[in-house]
Amino acid sequence: MNRKIVTLGELTLRLSPFDFERFVQTDKFEVIFGGAEANVAIALANLGDDVRYLTKLVENEMGQAALNNISRFGIDTDYIVRGGERLGIYYAEKGVGLRSPKVIYDRKNSSMAKAKIEEFDWDGVFKDVGLYFTTGITAAISKEGRDLVQYSIKEAKKRGLVVVFDLNYRASLWSLDEACEFYDKVLPMVDILIGVLPTRHECFKGDFNHECLSQMLKEIHDKYHIKYTISSIRNSFSASINSLSAGMYNGREYLKSQTYKFDIVDRIGGGDAFAAGLIHAYVNGYDIHDALDFAIALSALKHSIIGDYALFTEKQVGRLVSGDKHMLSFS
Amino acid sequence: MNRKIVTLGELTLRLSPFDFERFVQTDKFEVIFGGAEANVAIALANLGDDVRYLTKLVENEMGQAALNNISRFGIDTDYIVRGGERLGIYYAEKGVGLRSPKVIYDRKNSSMAKAKIEEFDWDGVFKDVGLYFTTGITAAISKEGRDLVQYSIKEAKKRGLVVVFDLNYRASLWSLDEACEFYDKVLPMVDILIGVLPTRHECFKGDFNHECLSQMLKEIHDKYHIKYTISSIRNSFSASINSLSAGMYNGREYLKSQTYKFDIVDRIGGGDAFAAGLIHAYVNGYDIHDALDFAIALSALKHSIIGDYALFTEKQVGRLVSGDKHMLSFS
Amino acid sequence: MNRKIVTLGELTLRLSPFDFERFVQTDKFEVIFGGAEANVAIALANLGDDVRYLTKLVENEMGQAALNNISRFGIDTDYIVRGGERLGIYYAEKGVGLRSPKVIYDRKNSSMAKAKIEEFDWDGVFKDVGLYFTTGITAAISKEGRDLVQYSIKEAKKRGLVVVFDLNYRASLWSLDEACEFYDKVLPMVDILIGVLPTRHECFKGDFNHECLSQMLKEIHDKYHIKYTISSIRNSFSASINSLSAGMYNGREYLKSQTYKFDIVDRIGGGDAFAAGLIHAYVNGYDIHDALDFAIALSALKHSIIGDYALFTEKQVGRLVSGDKHMLSFS
Amino acid sequence: MNRKIVTLGELTLRLSPFDFERFVQTDKFEVIFGGAEANVAIALANLGDDVRYLTKLVENEMGQAALNNISRFGIDTDYIVRGGERLGIYYAEKGVGLRSPKVIYDRKNSSMAKAKIEEFDWDGVFKDVGLYFTTGITAAISKEGRDLVQYSIKEAKKRGLVVVFDLNYRASLWSLDEACEFYDKVLPMVDILIGVLPTRHECFKGDFNHECLSQMLKEIHDKYHIKYTISSIRNSFSASINSLSAGMYNGREYLKSQTYKFDIVDRIGGGDAFAAGLIHAYVNGYDIHDALDFAIALSALKHSIIGDYALFTEKQVGRLVSGDKHMLSFS
Amino acid sequence: MNRKIVTLGELTLRLSPFDFERFVQTDKFEVIFGGAEANVAIALANLGDDVRYLTKLVENEMGQAALNNISRFGIDTDYIVRGGERLGIYYAEKGVGLRSPKVIYDRKNSSMAKAKIEEFDWDGVFKDVGLYFTTGITAAISKEGRDLVQYSIKEAKKRGLVVVFDLNYRASLWSLDEACEFYDKVLPMVDILIGVLPTRHECFKGDFNHECLSQMLKEIHDKYHIKYTISSIRNSFSASINSLSAGMYNGREYLKSQTYKFDIVDRIGGGDAFAAGLIHAYVNGYDIHDALDFAIALSALKHSIIGDYALFTEKQVGRLVSGDKHMLSFS
Amino acid sequence: MNRKIVTLGELTLRLSPFDFERFVQTDKFEVIFGGAEANVAIALANLGDDVRYLTKLVENEMGQAALNNISRFGIDTDYIVRGGERLGIYYAEKGVGLRSPKVIYDRKNSSMAKAKIEEFDWDGVFKDVGLYFTTGITAAISKEGRDLVQYSIKEAKKRGLVVVFDLNYRASLWSLDEACEFYDKVLPMVDILIGVLPTRHECFKGDFNHECLSQMLKEIHDKYHIKYTISSIRNSFSASINSLSAGMYNGREYLKSQTYKFDIVDRIGGGDAFAAGLIHAYVNGYDIHDALDFAIALSALKHSIIGDYALFTEKQVGRLVSGDKHMLSFS
Repeated sequence: MNRKIVTLGELTLRLSPFDFERFVQTDKFEVIFGGAEANVAIALANLGDDVRYLTKLVENEMGQAALNNISRFGIDTDYIVRGGERLGIYYAEKGVGLRSPKVIYDRKNSSMAKAKIEEFDWDGVFKDVGLYFTTGITAAISKEGRDLVQYSIKEAKKRGLVVVFDLNYRASLWSLDEACEFYDKVLPMVDILIGVLPTRHECFKGDFNHECLSQMLKEIHDKYHIKYTISSIRNSFSASINSLSAGMYNGREYLKSQTYKFDIVDRIGGGDAFAAGLIHAYVNGYDIHDALDFAIALSALKHSIIGDYALFTEKQVGRLVSGDKHMLSFS
Repeated sequence: MNRKIVTLGELTLRLSPFDFERFVQTDKFEVIFGGAEANVAIALANLGDDVRYLTKLVENEMGQAALNNISRFGIDTDYIVRGGERLGIYYAEKGVGLRSPKVIYDRKNSSMAKAKIEEFDWDGVFKDVGLYFTTGITAAISKEGRDLVQYSIKEAKKRGLVVVFDLNYRASLWSLDEACEFYDKVLPMVDILIGVLPTRHECFKGDFNHECLSQMLKEIHDKYHIKYTISSIRNSFSASINSLSAGMYNGREYLKSQTYKFDIVDRIGGGDAFAAGLIHAYVNGYDIHDALDFAIALSALKHSIIGDYALFTEKQVGRLVSGDKHMLSFS
Repeated sequence: MNRKIVTLGELTLRLSPFDFERFVQTDKFEVIFGGAEANVAIALANLGDDVRYLTKLVENEMGQAALNNISRFGIDTDYIVRGGERLGIYYAEKGVGLRSPKVIYDRKNSSMAKAKIEEFDWDGVFKDVGLYFTTGITAAISKEGRDLVQYSIKEAKKRGLVVVFDLNYRASLWSLDEACEFYDKVLPMVDILIGVLPTRHECFKGDFNHECLSQMLKEIHDKYHIKYTISSIRNSFSASINSLSAGMYNGREYLKSQTYKFDIVDRIGGGDAFAAGLIHAYVNGYDIHDALDFAIALSALKHSIIGDYALFTEKQVGRLVSGDKHMLSFS
Repeated sequence: MNRKIVTLGELTLRLSPFDFERFVQTDKFEVIFGGAEANVAIALANLGDDVRYLTKLVENEMGQAALNNISRFGIDTDYIVRGGERLGIYYAEKGVGLRSPKVIYDRKNSSMAKAKIEEFDWDGVFKDVGLYFTTGITAAISKEGRDLVQYSIKEAKKRGLVVVFDLNYRASLWSLDEACEFYDKVLPMVDILIGVLPTRHECFKGDFNHECLSQMLKEIHDKYHIKYTISSIRNSFSASINSLSAGMYNGREYLKSQTYKFDIVDRIGGGDAFAAGLIHAYVNGYDIHDALDFAIALSALKHSIIGDYALFTEKQVGRLVSGDKHMLSFS
Repeated sequence: MNRKIVTLGELTLRLSPFDFERFVQTDKFEVIFGGAEANVAIALANLGDDVRYLTKLVENEMGQAALNNISRFGIDTDYIVRGGERLGIYYAEKGVGLRSPKVIYDRKNSSMAKAKIEEFDWDGVFKDVGLYFTTGITAAISKEGRDLVQYSIKEAKKRGLVVVFDLNYRASLWSLDEACEFYDKVLPMVDILIGVLPTRHECFKGDFNHECLSQMLKEIHDKYHIKYTISSIRNSFSASINSLSAGMYNGREYLKSQTYKFDIVDRIGGGDAFAAGLIHAYVNGYDIHDALDFAIALSALKHSIIGDYALFTEKQVGRLVSGDKHMLSFS
Repeated sequence: MNRKIVTLGELTLRLSPFDFERFVQTDKFEVIFGGAEANVAIALANLGDDVRYLTKLVENEMGQAALNNISRFGIDTDYIVRGGERLGIYYAEKGVGLRSPKVIYDRKNSSMAKAKIEEFDWDGVFKDVGLYFTTGITAAISKEGRDLVQYSIKEAKKRGLVVVFDLNYRASLWSLDEACEFYDKVLPMVDILIGVLPTRHECFKGDFNHECLSQMLKEIHDKYHIKYTISSIRNSFSASINSLSAGMYNGREYLKSQTYKFDIVDRIGGGDAFAAGLIHAYVNGYDIHDALDFAIALSALKHSIIGDYALFTEKQVGRLVSGDKHMLSFS
């Protein structure tokens, strides 16, 4: 299999107050260029994988800054298209203690939300590529986004790529009906599915547990005939302390990862790190148990990073998986 | 009842090292304009209440900066008097882990500490107002402060306002004898009293508990014939983790609030947020149990904010009271 | 005449790299809430005038932050409407030395750009008001903006207010034809016009001069029968050093102000300070020469301030007009 | 002659907005510990001289921070007294372009302003010392300050030290009458006087010139029989560009220094650097012309430093005196 | 006994990303001058002890900055030698949550690593001194360092000083064989030994415990005939939460300190604070139990400080030892 | 001709105090990865050229950060070698006003200074490349550097590339004799030479002028038979204001560029921007006059940027060349 990975999605400007300031008190914003699929690409590049990222970026200095940020990690940006009206934005306030984190979207009419299928060079995009990743956020931002995701998955399948899809459902971006209609079209083409259907989010109400998750993953597997259905489970002790574990259904059995409990510096991108960990493990031939452990460890580690990115090498993640005691190391 | 609230007190300049720096290592200070009664006014304004704030501020750019800061939250500043010698100051070092927070006062001879009763337009101040709030700190800073608090409470009573008083005892500002002499004059006029008499602070020695608090609140109630005597209880696991609950005696029974345990970003203003929560609940007709829960939730949330202010809407506090799981929300 | 002033316009979020960083290198933005008419309102409030500001702001925390920022200066915000989709944004990179400043607009579909005439309480807005100010930017952002400006000026005239209008032409927001069509409708209702028609911008090509300006002002005066036509003239030695003077035609003669040459900290809001200076002088009964000198001095001083606002008292401006030697003063 | 130098004065906390922010817009202050005589001591220590600094500092963490700051430059702090009520403060806003710098004092009742003569160990203070320096600011802050300056100068004279005094007149701290009464007592004991009498400040009205200065210096010399009367002359093109030169009358002739024109980063401490340059030159046996040039060069260089201190070695100053071309140097 | 203490070691420049940033994402470094023996000297100076620090520093502005930093705490720097090639550097990334802290050394060829025995004035260094402290890091950085440590300990012993040595083994700086060869020469001269031999680090593998530690301390005691062998024990719950206790063998019995569990702001210098606490207790005649408790409390408190230094007075440490409840205090 | 450009040199970590702080007062450093040849590569990438950069970088997180920084601009980093001991460092203090900028090198034993010829894949490096650029700094840092420069130029020539060399003489890195011996070997292979021989730097003593420069360029041309000999001329009015122009000798005539006078934000990298401008003009077929003007304009613009890089597009430079008036532009 070709080991090159392509991810497609929107690259947005995340504006966050520094430290623990609230929107109503801050006078400066951190500038972070993020987005689920870009975060996955960046995490993979830091793990040492060969990644191409696909998006459309506005043709001005802010678009250039966004592009530079992707290039910085050695990601292939050759097929990124420039043009359109604006850079999508979201404002993100970190949570701490009893105060929950908060995101305000301002992504409408962004260059990527208005991008057309025919603007991309699909043959080039998928050349020598083995795995394709995108998420439900890109589908949720616009009609054009939905078309793009559906089309690109079809093209990837056609070329024999492994398709990984993260549901990433956002109730503020589209309705449940729109989402489900879309899922029915797309999920049958997916090989590895991350997340659970929003229709069954009632499990989220109480503290999530593996019993509930295993049922949900089995249901999705059965409904769409997906090879691996996988999800992480988060328990939130406070906005500053969470725990994470993961479960996977492979058509025969339900597998569980280790559980990590951890302090949170910045929660955004935690799920993307999980997806990146799974893809890295898949592309590099990990066995299933190791893959789950690696992915959940990377996701847990992400929470120690300011900004969206899981800035870890494979070796650093491996150290946590093998039971690192968090001692100071010298080199 | 008129729902407009007046608070009176000193607005001081708080100078704090950033993050967790100590006084002896910092080379910059955060500029925060605070003071118990101003903090209460600001918290109320953020909750959506109609507030007027009364103080005296020096007539220079620093006084102007302080004034702008109050106006910013939509608080009525029309009756604030300008003049006098200086802006009162306090230096505040945050605590963290095993290191306790520390405050150094430099408030003597401030414009408010030297303000005279006749400088304020009392008829204007109390026009269309339903509730008046001030605290023992304003009484403690000077003889003039004591006169002002006593006079203003008498005037408020005369006009039929509900009087809320927070004891806020500071041993570094006045002696116990001075304080008690003052309490004997003022507390009989108070409708809602927050805090416990410093004469009975021995309960604070061990870990505070509701048994001890209920006795103290009953004693004060009986001694001064106050309608509601209320106090929060803080347990300090470290300078970074505390828990809070509250108790109230209403002449018949002792009521307890929920208990919250939380990470601390900045501890100053936690008590003021509790007072603001109570006042908000009172003015908006909450029942007694809900009032206590709301107040203690707001106080707990305050600890997640850098600076003195409880920057929360009623809805945000309500979410915690109803059992928020601290998940990331999108809008 | 009533001395209360109303200004109407959009309040946008300005995102600027700190110091002299470029868009492509910054990792943080200054958060400044600006807009021509808000800047004028803030400058007037700092000069001691009684101002009301009118706009529509999105109903989320970012809209609240914008609103707080206006309240902070003691401006009346009672008639501001909340709602709509988003806060308009612009990115602004400061210039320095040989490098020109740069602005990128992202204001489409903002709450104010989509505001409807009937959303505002016009009787309330203009109650006890003597002067109304708005600018061509608000007209340029959308069809709805154009309607709002035209309607509000008509309403102001109907109530006998003095109408001041700043052309503020932005070629990136609308075409010359659209602008001129709009001018023909609105300028006949204007009492004091600031700026020159973009149709005659050829004078800007070379170094601007009073001869050229006096003709332009006379032409506009004659065409639209405006009482005072006024404009500043800027000469740019570099992005760090400019000079400013102003000219006015009052139907009989052309008057010139003093000229100031100055270092630039932040150029944005310089023109708004000029407008505010004129309005302040008008409302406070300055004679014509003093008005021009005051306005150009305030505009020059603005360039020493980080952010959009002319944060000066009348006394501070007066000191420059009377020939301040920039010595250190102690108080 | 012993080359050890003693300076006596108040060490105050200077609170300055960063960069070019105004008081009314800043949310943080630079923490700088300054004061004329401390600045002179620090400049001398950086030039390589052996200095002792004398003051009284409050006994808390802020006093400790001030003390550490003095020790940092290798200055002898053994005779500094701890105690009293508070650290004196001043707020300082930098000027830029057409906007003048501004200082607001809050120094009343500081530990040093209330220090008593008998609190210091005068024999220890002056042991093995050759030169004593203090200024009119210390005399101006309080009655106690006046006594201290007068007494210390008498003690220094008694022990045969060279006495250098900088007039440093501040109209906001005392009246002209008080100052002159004090000068009559103290100036007859002074060997080297820096500055001109405030009674003759009319020369400052226009642009200062050497003709005027030479007369003033001769008058002071004749009136008080002072060996060297010296002053710098500042011309202010703007708050960002000044020029400096200096003149000296030695009883026979009037000598002029070089003139420097320069950009200003921070103007405070410029005069103190001049005094330090003169003292350094005197103690190290420079000839008179070189002394004046060295002092004015150090003063000019100080304006390139953020904060009060002239952080330059003798070699660095020498390079400017000999005509440095400001090229980048590598080492 | 003379109470003056000398410490000898390298003063390096520590470059740390701010807050919790990683090396690969930061664009600024905190400048901290640290090193085990300098940290001990600084901690002692803050506790009120009389300390001299000995090192060699490069003769340029960076060396000067390092020197000023030591002087700042009132430490005697008279015997520090200037010269050599460069300032040693280390990059330090803080850990947080599940992410471990990381140090990268760049200390080769530093001025101190190349310093020669004969460059120091040993008679001056040890004049009126009662206790000498150095560590294994200085021995590990170079052959010259090893010679310096061995020679200086011999000289200290010769003069009757108490010799305290902290093993501070760093596997990245030298091999176990080199270290052990060196220990055999030096440890027989040591009176108080801190730390355990790297040959027996297997105890570190699991969670450290007092049983294991007591054996190790007894073995070292017996092998080298050292009066007190002492070590702290750290358990690491995460990079953000650790606990510490200490054990000592005095030839007769094994003694244990209190245990503290705490949040970590900056872990570096925790061990140096422990050594400083022991030395302070020894020099000031604490009894053995109090000494252990004081040292472990200071070490625990250090973790609340940004940077390497234990910035605490004796009184502040005493408060924790006696069971401080971390309440806000006012003065 | 192939338009791909290769530059080779060391990538060092530049540590600069922020703003105008001096080394002895700063507590934080800007992290900038620079070096003459990297700066040229980055400038070219921003101008839109296709660039490959060659160096050797240490195999740790700091080396990774340096590598990411190069990738960020879309530069080809495929042939960069990882390994060696350390990242070279230099400390750089900006100048301002009368205070000169200062650089302290700590580059010895860096990975690149110790790199061997055989570690690079020269066939890969020069594949499809048209122009090769390196400078005298890389030759000056070590014997290995000298070998690398000589070998790489020979290889480039052998493959028919245009060779551009910037003399960049640093007296602190090597002696004049070493330099000249090296020049004699290398310059005969050079097609375009930038800078003047240090043997003839006497022209630099006074203010540089075109008469002197034209002679120097002709001499070098004649001595080494170089096609184009080119240099910029800098006049330094102060550390904050310089002017630049350039001259070129092409074997027939001496050509002069425009002259720019400008404010300086950061002077480092000004010469590298000039080289990049020349290379861009050459590769893109500018005529000779336009090339000189373009290069000097880019160099002048660089001085407005914080950090080493000329972050300008071709269009932005073109605007200055055609006489930009530094007005605010909107898009």
